[in-house]
Parts: sequence; C-alpha cells; structure tokens
Amino acid sequence: MAKKYFSDRNLKFLLYEVFDTEALTRYEYYGDHNRKTFDLVLDSAGKIAKDLLWPIFEEMDRRPPELSDGTIKVHPDVRKILREFGEGGWISTIVPYDLDGEQLPHVIAYACQFIFMAANYSGATYSGLCDGAARLIENFGGKALYERYVPNMRAGIWQGTMALTEPEAGSSLADITTIAAPTKKDHYLIKGQKIFISAGDHDAADNVVHLLLAKIEGAPSGVRGISLFVVPKKRIEDGGRLVPNDVSTSGVYHKLGYRGCPIAQLSFGDRDDCRGWLVGEPHQGLRYMFQMMNEARIGVGLGAIAMATAAYYASLEYARERKQGRRIGQKDPNLPPVPIIEHADVKRMLLFQRAVVEGSLSLAIQCSQYVDLMTVSGGAEKQKYSLLLDLLTPVVKSYPSEMGIQSISQGLQCFGGSGFCDDYPLEQYYRDCRIHPIHEGTTGIQGADLLGRKIIMYEGKAYELYLDEVGRAIVDASDVPALSAYARQLADAVEALKTLTEQLQAVAMEKGAEVYLADATLYLEYFGIICIAWQWLLQGLVVQKALDGKCRKKDERFYRGKFAAMQYFYAYELPKTMGLAARLKNADGLTVSLQPEWFDD
Amino acid sequence: MAKKYFSDRNLKFLLYEVFDTEALTRYEYYGDHNRKTFDLVLDSAGKIAKDLLWPIFEEMDRRPPELSDGTIKVHPDVRKILREFGEGGWISTIVPYDLDGEQLPHVIAYACQFIFMAANYSGATYSGLCDGAARLIENFGGKALYERYVPNMRAGIWQGTMALTEPEAGSSLADITTIAAPTKKDHYLIKGQKIFISAGDHDAADNVVHLLLAKIEGAPSGVRGISLFVVPKKRIEDGGRLVPNDVSTSGVYHKLGYRGCPIAQLSFGDRDDCRGWLVGEPHQGLRYMFQMMNEARIGVGLGAIAMATAAYYASLEYARERKQGRRIGQKDPNLPPVPIIEHADVKRMLLFQRAVVEGSLSLAIQCSQYVDLMTVSGGAEKQKYSLLLDLLTPVVKSYPSEMGIQSISQGLQCFGGSGFCDDYPLEQYYRDCRIHPIHEGTTGIQGADLLGRKIIMYEGKAYELYLDEVGRAIVDASDVPALSAYARQLADAVEALKTLTEQLQAVAMEKGAEVYLADATLYLEYFGIICIAWQWLLQGLVVQKALDGKCRKKDERFYRGKFAAMQYFYAYELPKTMGLAARLKNADGLTVSLQPEWFDD
Repeated sequence: MAKKYFSDRNLKFLLYEVFDTEALTRYEYYGDHNRKTFDLVLDSAGKIAKDLLWPIFEEMDRRPPELSDGTIKVHPDVRKILREFGEGGWISTIVPYDLDGEQLPHVIAYACQFIFMAANYSGATYSGLCDGAARLIENFGGKALYERYVPNMRAGIWQGTMALTEPEAGSSLADITTIAAPTKKDHYLIKGQKIFISAGDHDAADNVVHLLLAKIEGAPSGVRGISLFVVPKKRIEDGGRLVPNDVSTSGVYHKLGYRGCPIAQLSFGDRDDCRGWLVGEPHQGLRYMFQMMNEARIGVGLGAIAMATAAYYASLEYARERKQGRRIGQKDPNLPPVPIIEHADVKRMLLFQRAVVEGSLSLAIQCSQYVDLMTVSGGAEKQKYSLLLDLLTPVVKSYPSEMGIQSISQGLQCFGGSGFCDDYPLEQYYRDCRIHPIHEGTTGIQGADLLGRKIIMYEGKAYELYLDEVGRAIVDASDVPALSAYARQLADAVEALKTLTEQLQAVAMEKGAEVYLADATLYLEYFGIICIAWQWLLQGLVVQKALDGKCRKKDERFYRGKFAAMQYFYAYELPKTMGLAARLKNADGLTVSLQPEWFDD
Repeated sequence: MAKKYFSDRNLKFLLYEVFDTEALTRYEYYGDHNRKTFDLVLDSAGKIAKDLLWPIFEEMDRRPPELSDGTIKVHPDVRKILREFGEGGWISTIVPYDLDGEQLPHVIAYACQFIFMAANYSGATYSGLCDGAARLIENFGGKALYERYVPNMRAGIWQGTMALTEPEAGSSLADITTIAAPTKKDHYLIKGQKIFISAGDHDAADNVVHLLLAKIEGAPSGVRGISLFVVPKKRIEDGGRLVPNDVSTSGVYHKLGYRGCPIAQLSFGDRDDCRGWLVGEPHQGLRYMFQMMNEARIGVGLGAIAMATAAYYASLEYARERKQGRRIGQKDPNLPPVPIIEHADVKRMLLFQRAVVEGSLSLAIQCSQYVDLMTVSGGAEKQKYSLLLDLLTPVVKSYPSEMGIQSISQGLQCFGGSGFCDDYPLEQYYRDCRIHPIHEGTTGIQGADLLGRKIIMYEGKAYELYLDEVGRAIVDASDVPALSAYARQLADAVEALKTLTEQLQAVAMEKGAEVYLADATLYLEYFGIICIAWQWLLQGLVVQKALDGKCRKKDERFYRGKFAAMQYFYAYELPKTMGLAARLKNADGLTVSLQPEWFDD
C-alpha cells in the first residue's frame, strides 16, 4: 500500500499561506480558536485517518456490504469508526457551543473531512451522513425532534440518512410519490419506496434516522408539494423502548466502487405502520434540503479531490520506485534503467494530477471559507459570500468530480499494467471515483444550475462579484514580474468568458431556454477551468513571494513544484477553453433539433 | 441485458458504402469472394457472437479465472468457444488457401473480430491470440515448426500466446533477461520469468504455445540481441506424446476488468528443462514481432471500439426507456415525464458516443483496407499502403483506446445511479475498457512512435501520403454544398497541423529530441482528432449523396443521424485541436526541465 495519501504540507499551505484561515479567529464566533488549536484538530484527524480508516481502505472494498435476514451487514470496523467519530466530537465539529459542538470553522471541518476521505472515502461517509441529517433536524426540526434524535446521531450511535430518490424520481424530485397521511397524533403515516440511499441500513448503528422527502396527501403537485420528515427505522415508544417502524430493506446495490458504504433500497409502510414526523412547515421540504445543498456539494467535490489526491501520491511513489527504460537520447542499452519519473511523459502525467488536485483543493477551501464568512458576517457582506458560494457550488462539485476521474486515470496509466491489477490501489480509485459526477446532482444538473440559474440570478450579481474576485487576483499578479504573463493569460480568458456569457444571453432571448441550456455542461466545464486558473494564480502569488524571499531548501523544492504545477495548468489546461468557447458561441441547437429516431438504424 | 451491442447497418454502411470492400474481389487473390460471401461470413459471425459469446459476457466477468493446482481454471464455456472457433475456420480466416485458410480479406476478418469483441471482449481474445501466434510461426518459423504447432492452434485445441513482458521489462523490451542456452540438439534451454501474458495458461486448451522473446547467451545487448522462440507448455516427445516442458504458472492477476481472460505470470526453466525452438534467425525476434504489430494494434483499437459500441447501444436503449423530468420550458408538473432521450443534454451524450465510435470504426476499417491493399498490390502501390498503415497504426490503436473510455463514461452517465450498479452492463464496460491504453504499447509509447518515428520516416513520406488522402476528401466535399463548410473547417485544421508539425521539426533541431517528444502524447491526440474528422467527412460524402437521392424512410433516419454525428464531431470535437495546438507550439520543455524532487513536499 502507498505510504502517503495526502499532503499535510499542501493542506497547510492552502489553509494558512493562501487563505489565511487564522484570520477567522478575529471574528467573535471563532474567537476561542487559533492556529494552534486548528493544527491540533488537523493532527488528530490525521491520526484517526491513519489508525482507523486507512488500514481498511482496501478491505472494505473487498468485503462489500451484503443483505442478510433483512439487514445489511457492513465491515465489522464500521461500528468502531462511528463510535470513535462520535466520541471524538467529529460529528459535531461545526456545531455551536450551545448545542455541545466544537464551533470550529467550516474550513477546518472540511479539511478534516478531506483527510478522512483521502484515507478511505467509504469509511468516512457514515459519520458525514450523520452530521448532515442531524443538521437538518437542528436547523428546521424544532426542539422535540432535536432532543429525540440528534444526540444519538452525533454520538455515532444512530445513523442518519437523506432519503430523496425514488424509482421514478431521481434528477426530477418533483415526481416523488411517497405519501404522508396525517393522523390525529403528532405523526404522519408514510408509504413509499426509496432507492440509492447511502448508509440507508446497516448493522453498525443501533438505529437509522431517515430525513425523508414525501408528499402530504392533497399537497400541490410538483416541487411545491414536497415535505420533509424524520422517519426512524425503529421508533421510540413511551418509556424509550425502540420498536420497528415498518421500514424494510428491500435490497443493497452491488456497485462499481464506493463499495465500503451500503447503498440501500428501502420500503416504507408496507404494513401501514410507518410513522414519520414533519420537519418544519408542510411543503417546505425541498427548500430545507436545498439549504444544506451547497455544503453537501462542496463535500462531494472534496471527496473527489481526496480520492484523486490519494491516487496522485500512490502514482508518484510508484514513479519514483519503478525503473524502466532510459531517457531519450541515452541510447546505450548497457546504462542502467532510470526511475520512470525521469521520463518527461511521466512527469507530465504527474504534473497533470498535481495541477488538477491542488487547484481543486484550493477552490474547495475557497468555498469553505465563503461558508465561514457567511456565518460570521451580516448584511451586504453576508449576501456577498452567500452569492459567491451559490455561484461556485456547481463548479466545486463538478470540476473535481469530472477531472478527478481523468486525474486518477492518468495515475493508473503511470503504473502501466500494474495499474490494471488489484495489487495496487489505482484500480480501486478508478472505480470509486466514478460515483462523483452522479450523486448529489449529476454534472448535467450542475451545468443547468450554473447557466440556467446562478449566472443570471439577481441580475447577474453573483457572477459580477465573482468576476471582481478574479479581477483582483489578476491585478495583484500583474505587478509580479514572474506572474504577469499568467495574469495576462487569465485576463484574456476572463474577457472571453464575459463575451461568451453575453452572447449566450442573446441566444436565450432569440432561441429560447432549451437552446440556451443545450450546452450548459460545456459551459460548466469552461467556467470551471477558468475558476481553477484563478485558484492557481492565487497560489502563484504566495509561491513567488516565498521564492523571492529566503526559503529553506526543502521549502524551495515545494514551491518550485507548485510553480511548475501552476505553469502546467496555464500551458495545458487553460487553453482547453479555446475549443469549448468555439463550440459554445456557435449555439446552433444541434442537439435540440436532433430527433430521437435519428438514432435508429 | 441490452438487446443490441453493435449495428449491422452501420458496419455494412462502412464496409460497402464508404469503403467499397467488394472492390477487393477484383484482385485475383480475393477473386473467389463477393459481397454475398462476405455477408454470409458476417452473418455467421453475428450468429456465433449471439449464441456463444454474448450470453456469457457478464458471467465471465463475475467468475474470473483462478489459479488452482498449478493451472488456471477459466469459464467452462471457453473450451467450447475455442473449439467452435477452430472448427468454424475463425482462427484461419485470412490464412491463404494453400495453408487451409479462408483467404478472406483482412477487413472482413476484422469486421468479424469487431462483432465478437462487441459481444464479449474477453471471450473473443482466446482465438485472436491463437491466430496471432500461429501467424508468427507461419511467417517466420519454417515448415517443421509450422507442422508441429500450427494445425492444433488453428483448430482451437492449443492456445497460442505472445510472451514478451518481464518483471523488469515492459515498455522497454531491450531489458529482457530471459535466456536461451544453445544445446547440441535443435532446441535451446529457456530460463526466465514472463508476466502479463494474456491467456498464458488455462484449462480450456490441451496445450499452450508461447511465442517468447529471449536472449541467446552472448547475444548483443539491447533490442538487437532479442530472439523469438516457440516454447510449448507441453512439448512433443518422439511418438507424439505430450510431456511437461518445465513451464509453470506462478500467478494469475486479479484485474479491474477484462476478467474473462486470464493474464498469467509464468516461470520458464525452473528445473533447467524448458526447451524452446528458435523462430527464424537469431537476434531477429523483435523484427518478427514488430511485423505483426500493426495488425495487433489495429486489433486493440478495434477492441476498444467494440466495447464502446456495445456501451453506446446499451445507453441508447436505456435513454429511450427511462422516463425522467420534462423538457425545458414544460413547467407543468402534471405533464407526464419524458424518455430522457428527449433531453438535449442526453442527446449530446449519445451523439458524443456515436461520433466517437462510428468515427473510430471508420478509421479501423480504413486501416484494415490498407492491410488488404498491401497484400494484393506490389511496388510503389504496396509501399504507399504500407507507409499509410505504419503512420496510422499508433492513431488507430490509441484514439479509440483513450476516447473509448470517455465514450463509455458518458454512456454510464446516461444511466445515472444505475450506471454505477452491476444490474446494468455499463460498469463492466467502464472497467473492461481501461486496459486498452495500456496493452500493446501504452498511449505514451504510441505518441513517441508517431512523432518520433512515423512522421519523419523516409523524410516524411508517409505523412505526405496521408495529407494527400485527407486532401482528396476535402476536395470532394468542397463540391457538395451541404459539406463545403465542413471541408473548409477540416482544411483549416490540416493547415494548422502542417504548420505545427513544421514548427516541431524546428524544435527538434534547436532543443533536441527530449523537448521535441515531451508532448508527443498530445500530438497524438491532436493528430487523432483530425484523422477522425477526415473519416467523418468520408462518411458525410456518402450520407449526403444518399440524402440528396431518394431513400426509404428508415434509411433516411439512419443517414440523418449519421449527418448529425458528423456535425457533432465538427462542432464539439474538432475544436479541441485549438487548445492542443496552442500547447504544442509552445514547446517550452516544461516537463523536461522539471526536477523529480520538486514533487517532494
């Protein structure tokens, strides 16, 4: 197994050198913390990842969950992991003090999450799901539900889930058919099927608490009639006894990857005895769910980055050790073979991975910081960060998801034939990572979200705020001789983005929404590349300053590598926008006018 | 399981409408054949694929080969498949009549191979390997070896293999250490380890005949000292008895995909009793092997196309059946949901797959036709086709391998969450296809071959012949109103290719071979896109002619779809060359000057 799956140096470079995370402690809300406490938390996360998660990364894949006697059996260590995460406070890192949490900045919580997911993505999901479900109850469910469910979820004793998808309603939640019938008591009777529910059932938790979307009888049709319920697998009778709540597990999926976490098919109310408790107001379920969406989607992007990071370090280690061939120009077959990291083509594959994963991690931390700044600020400030976050959420979810696959595939390629075999971890990363463009809204959905909603909302205000942010980095970099060429290149790309975005608005007016959105996925890709170029320029500013000053030999190597990765991104990745722009500005509606029967033959 | 895994209509469109395969029968060598016999052969292949291969496509994956008691056990049907392929003449389709073959054109043999591989790639490899190994003996081994080994290999009774790779010698064959010690008899004593040997050992064949690379004691170092041997698992004693030949199976790989075919680790001569028979002259092994390489590499490209084709049809079927959401603009949630093929973004994903697979298949048939034209012509003609084939081999191997992965990934995406689960075949295609950029020379090796050898060989003669071919298609299309814009677009791309290629020659002179070849992989990608655009223009010419004439409704749908796929390629894929060209002409040697220790942190 590879020795390293993330870089502590790089994580801290981003947190402290690029983003000045410590500045958050100047706000009263985070005033108790400082860099030292942050580092302690990060180090503890590193230790847990190393001791609990990493050792069973492979094993959880090889022994996937199985359904037997109505319950899904998972790896025996999951129970221990959940409890240790609960006891260590890892399911309540960002929870306020008054709810017994650690009140840590989101950016630190995400950094810990990143470490966990790099060590073992499947192993890290259980607690993450508990946290997300608990926060929904905490924010919208009221005191009674909170007291009944949340403490056990935050203690890692009960599993939390998000139960949205149904057989006929995936991307289109408007079509869910799970019904909630009111009763004379405080509960509703739930009836319906849910599929693709992560950690939807397993034997490592004593109960499972579903945050479930359903329609109350007689509710308006479509998304306006969706309500949110708490539906436990076992309900609490008077006196505290747990009894079955008519929730049954009808199946567990056998999956390409991400095998350590069970994805369940669930049936609610087969015997008309499944009770659910309404969270907040009726028909507001989707709104509540979507208030958690930005953070959930940062989480998916971060998961993709974490896997690609681990894959990158595994391929880097292999490239250093594996000897093969000689450098071009060294024709003498009697010379000893060189480590493949000496070959330019292998360095290219490694640099590609580094440019993708470190650029993406930078964006994820940028977005996490926006969450924190939203949390601590008010008024126009708060709105600014909220809009920036809304705009960048589809990007931070999808760029790492899509490019993470490419990155891992290049990592696998560095291994040659060994990458295809399960003696090395690359084949698992290649399988695991394919989930990310699918879950929490497919890439297609993210594209439509960006171009159809985020770019134009509030008359383009979020988009303008974003252009200001990028513009500031360009101005800063223009003053640095070693960076001015990159600043110019990014400025040109941003000008092209502006022109294109305007052209597309004209397309929307002339040809309608369907043509406007037909290539939204490409627009998302285009937008994402520019976003990552911006993040690399932000890193470049810090790097160049360090290189211009005095730095230790070891640091110099790190900064030189960083600089090369930035150069790589500008030389190899940013030019991809040219072809995308050419297509996007064409907007001929080719795929709209295409008739489905033309696929016949 | 999907109902369709390839399109007979499309295959015949390419064979007869685009490439006029029947014209080959005007050459004496193929004079006994005609379209009718070709169709009979193709139909038989379709039947075998459907009856023998397709039914166990999934099962061969789920029950992968295992090593037990020193032998690899494979799926029980493999024995039947091998025998039926042998008896049906499928292992001797292109073999001349005088060697009891069918003397069919390569293009027809490849088309059959395509059908087999689309049905079940793993299942189709066994016989393909027998054929390749048999042909090496046939071409270079002399009569005695031929008579001793080939009949059983072509009958599907003995397995043939190519035993090249060793633990320390993969991409760099110069470093093989397997030794052949001369004896006083007609054989050598072989000693060494071979790894990654496809079908290297299994219980469905009565013997395994390895075509093995080794160095004769005292041979020159490097590639000039490599010889080719026949090394059977069981050797034939006087009287015809088979006895063990000291070849042992030390392992079988557990792989990401392509699981139906065993990839073995083999040990030769552990007890100093492994006999090998020299094929042809000493030290000429690599030359012999490379004379088969073009055809082997077309085979890999074709395998990638076949898998991506099957994945495309599976996703097309799903997109027609799966209902979800409404078209953009249809806001009323009471309207019934539409099949997802109605969504422009899904049509885009389908059209991308079609553009990739049908463009690639066209190139593979183009290359196969070159093999045939080489076979039947002489003098300058023969040299022309030989050079075109040499030039295009790295492209036809790698474009489908790399883009097939993208294509299959988009197919998987059409399935949403179901694509990630093994209830549907996409996850298997996604795993299976990852082998292609690795085996028979990695993509990096192909890039170096194209830019470092093929483009410049014979003072650029192959490259010029290729430009002529593309130029002719451009001229033809320029005269057709519906195609002239595409002809112009391709002409511009070819001009850019010429300029870039010249610029790179200057780079080679100024900065040396290492900088020149640093981005050879990108050059290959760039070159490949233009190649496929050429193939789409060739198809467009036929399509437009059909649409301009009278065609049946059903045919019209097919041709309209074809035209749309061509448009897609020109609108979405060809513009990718812009970004690639921008990078390639930069040629700053970033990855050459990058120091391996800059990856430290």
